[in-house]
Amino acid sequence: MAKHSDARKPKAETPKGFRDYFGAEVAERREMLAKISAVYELYGFDALETSAVETVEALGKFLPDVDRPNEGVFAWLEDADWLALRYDLTAPLARVYAQHRQDLPTPYRRYAMGPVWRNEKPGPGRFRQFYQCDADTVGAASVAADAEICAMLADVLEAVGIARGDYVVKVNNRKVLNGILEKAKLLDPLDPERYALKRGIVLRAIDKKDRIGSAGVRELLRTGRKDESGDFTKGADLTDEQVEIIMEFVDAKFGTLVLTRINLATAILEDNSGLEEAMRLAISYLIGEEIDSDSLNHARGAASSQYLNYLGKILDGWETGTEGVRELVELFNLLAPSGPARQQVVIDPTVVRGLGYYTGSVFEAELTFDITDDKGRKQQFGSVAGGGRYDDLVKRFTGQEVPATGVSIGVDRLLAALRAKELEKGEATKKWSGPVVVTVMDRDRMADYQAMVADLRNANIRAEVYLGNPKQFGNQLKYADKRGSPVAVIQGADELARGVVQIKDLILGAQMAANASLEEWKIRPSQYEVPREGFEKHVQSILDAHKK
Amino acid sequence: MAKHSDARKPKAETPKGFRDYFGAEVAERREMLAKISAVYELYGFDALETSAVETVEALGKFLPDVDRPNEGVFAWLEDADWLALRYDLTAPLARVYAQHRQDLPTPYRRYAMGPVWRNEKPGPGRFRQFYQCDADTVGAASVAADAEICAMLADVLEAVGIARGDYVVKVNNRKVLNGILEKAKLLDPLDPERYALKRGIVLRAIDKKDRIGSAGVRELLRTGRKDESGDFTKGADLTDEQVEIIMEFVDAKFGTLVLTRINLATAILEDNSGLEEAMRLAISYLIGEEIDSDSLNHARGAASSQYLNYLGKILDGWETGTEGVRELVELFNLLAPSGPARQQVVIDPTVVRGLGYYTGSVFEAELTFDITDDKGRKQQFGSVAGGGRYDDLVKRFTGQEVPATGVSIGVDRLLAALRAKELEKGEATKKWSGPVVVTVMDRDRMADYQAMVADLRNANIRAEVYLGNPKQFGNQLKYADKRGSPVAVIQGADELARGVVQIKDLILGAQMAANASLEEWKIRPSQYEVPREGFEKHVQSILDAHKK
Repeated sequence: MAKHSDARKPKAETPKGFRDYFGAEVAERREMLAKISAVYELYGFDALETSAVETVEALGKFLPDVDRPNEGVFAWLEDADWLALRYDLTAPLARVYAQHRQDLPTPYRRYAMGPVWRNEKPGPGRFRQFYQCDADTVGAASVAADAEICAMLADVLEAVGIARGDYVVKVNNRKVLNGILEKAKLLDPLDPERYALKRGIVLRAIDKKDRIGSAGVRELLRTGRKDESGDFTKGADLTDEQVEIIMEFVDAKFGTLVLTRINLATAILEDNSGLEEAMRLAISYLIGEEIDSDSLNHARGAASSQYLNYLGKILDGWETGTEGVRELVELFNLLAPSGPARQQVVIDPTVVRGLGYYTGSVFEAELTFDITDDKGRKQQFGSVAGGGRYDDLVKRFTGQEVPATGVSIGVDRLLAALRAKELEKGEATKKWSGPVVVTVMDRDRMADYQAMVADLRNANIRAEVYLGNPKQFGNQLKYADKRGSPVAVIQGADELARGVVQIKDLILGAQMAANASLEEWKIRPSQYEVPREGFEKHVQSILDAHKK
Repeated sequence: MAKHSDARKPKAETPKGFRDYFGAEVAERREMLAKISAVYELYGFDALETSAVETVEALGKFLPDVDRPNEGVFAWLEDADWLALRYDLTAPLARVYAQHRQDLPTPYRRYAMGPVWRNEKPGPGRFRQFYQCDADTVGAASVAADAEICAMLADVLEAVGIARGDYVVKVNNRKVLNGILEKAKLLDPLDPERYALKRGIVLRAIDKKDRIGSAGVRELLRTGRKDESGDFTKGADLTDEQVEIIMEFVDAKFGTLVLTRINLATAILEDNSGLEEAMRLAISYLIGEEIDSDSLNHARGAASSQYLNYLGKILDGWETGTEGVRELVELFNLLAPSGPARQQVVIDPTVVRGLGYYTGSVFEAELTFDITDDKGRKQQFGSVAGGGRYDDLVKRFTGQEVPATGVSIGVDRLLAALRAKELEKGEATKKWSGPVVVTVMDRDRMADYQAMVADLRNANIRAEVYLGNPKQFGNQLKYADKRGSPVAVIQGADELARGVVQIKDLILGAQMAANASLEEWKIRPSQYEVPREGFEKHVQSILDAHKK
């Protein structure tokens, strides 16, 4: 370490937008990643881990003639090359496939998990390093590959603990969007750059439908819109005719609502079949046709096909759009009738997905339960995963088109959602996951205490000797409390002479301190003596008793 | 994605010194990290995950008045701050402890695992991103904390599959080294900067003892040394008296050799007690005293104490050095008599550890088995972990001294060692860990094939439909082979009509292709028909049969 003057102490701070994760937070994320990757493995995907650092050239987000890469990534000049931290796991996959395609199987099905870095303005809950967990199939042109990803996404969400009915996987197709844009004269297949600016405004407006409503989208298609804070967003200045073409598509969102309601109804009915008759009537009314009393699957199918018919009608005569509708139909037909995806996948025309590189199916997983925020307001958690088909990403390197499709799960958002839901249900109690602490009564007998800890560890009990300054015994118990230790072990000179140790049940102690009467104290003491020989068995009994 | 001209395709390459890890490599590392962290958890350490990015100021490797940080890290200027990728997991721990010390328990026992980045010249097997897995105790001054880390390190090595006898944990103490340097007038406690240059040369020379031998060290202590390639390294130009003081210490390495031999002998004896008498005689000769025929532990203890006595003698009158010897004695006495560490920890005066920040105990885990390299030469694998006590690292931030001790395991090196050993033993056979592949005979029946895969997955069998172009059936089987798939499933129109599927045992098929006679083919065909209903049970039987 180089010398430094004491007058100029460094600040002990994470860089802005970065944070540290402690104990349980790390363990929870690790468990979630294990659950997600187990599903990916089951579906036949293989692990890939690329380095955090890529050449800016390979990441490919930048204009080749700009000297300093633009914002969005952390980049630096290393000798003659610009290097950068990866901003997602897809760009490195495209590089890997292009680099190793001679040795990789085709299709190449890989999953990856790890942090990505974004050089964006940090905000509350928005960090510049966060985890993603992706699965992609490279080299498969078939819609079956997209359908599989959707089905897998539903399986993943349920595997990590999101109940059926608490999420939807919204599906759309870029070709449908492009068909609408062609019809509205906002996309010229022979000159893709034309109208790019207007198209950007239109797609962003559609994407905001959930927040600003149909009327808000209309304003953005015309001259512009002033939001609640007074900020004005310039509109696309479309003609009336263009606006109507876009809006007949956007308002088809009605179809999604029907589907979502049906799914919710199904979920409710599973719990409470007394509601069945009422729901069936309500749904019949919504979709405007009688539904089979045996099953609501029919209603779902009916609404689905009704909606797809509608899309087919408004895109009639537009080749790309019609192909998009055909792909949506195919995707739905490929979802296994028994799987969760069949119930939870819905078509949503407002799913745009920001990234420019999608070329076919696009999808987004959204949590549908409400969370009460700090200020007591109900909030929806929103999107936790997204993806789609991107057929041109590998082509950048090789010149040959390589079809690919995949999904990226925002692991940290998903964790935050599960934690918020647990908090709401009041299930977030103290974890008592700390180690058993062997206290130090006599510092010259450290070898004895180490031997006690060794006995505990040999019995597979998480344990440690108190290694701080043992002078004040109270500090040792405070330490055990801070660690969430379930048991403390004590052996002073007196206990040593008699060949015993004291074991202190700290969970019971805490429960007593909180609410027990004097009577209970006598019946079940929280501290008692056991022989030193085999004391670890008594510690194990305490741990077992609390597990029940 | 910004537009780019096709004429200027980006190169699909990792940056120099970085690499990708595929499938089994990722899984193996993940398993190893899980095993290591399980031991850390058992010892009471809690997880911590810091971000990859720190301020250069917090990493603290740099002179404060230099504009561009020096080599060694990847750093860049972000707004007004220099940021950098962490180069180890210890510097971020010091920052975390200084930042959060009010909320953290004392002692703070944490483990961390993840990649670190070094901006060094890459070479064969030397990468610029690699994994470390650390455990540290901050706020514990006692040698008991050092002893615990040594014991845990031995447990970790055995947990990941290194046999007892195949590794040693070498221990030394910086205070012993400093005592020797004081005695040799190469360290002035009142003016620590004095002789820094000569001291550096001396410490590096001692560190190289294993490679260049006693004579080589002597040359470096004098005028200098020319190595095999002809490169000349300048020496420290010590006086004869100084050289002798250093060498009487360096040659005490003999003590380590004795200990290592005893440990090896013990390991051999456990397997083959017929050798006992011969070994006992050899060891008696080596350590120059009769040893107890009941146990070799006595011999170990005798050699240990003989060696410590010797160190105590040459450092007599030198306060720091004598304290170092006392700490070494204490550390040894704290190792649990029954644990692996008691057998595998050896004192080695040549353990220096490069980092300047160590202040007390230093240790290094070394693998002692030979590996045959590409050119058929035997090579020792060397160091896979190291650590020690560093009492000044947190002080940089807070001004107050905070005692700390810890270990860092080089996960990638350890993995490489295990892999090399497996290869040597010929245990690295094809893994057959790929998914069951359901082939596509009729692309219009994709939904049927998806349903078959769903049945397999519901039975918890890793499986997928072939999603490439199904035209050439041979490609589908080639794909299954490349993935290491144990089973392929086939259903054409004929099988469909009869309600059956063909299942093809690819492991058996490969075995037959390699060495089976025609007779066996008839008895145990590698492909046969089963009913479509419940076919997954037959697939499971094949998988089970090969597991045996």
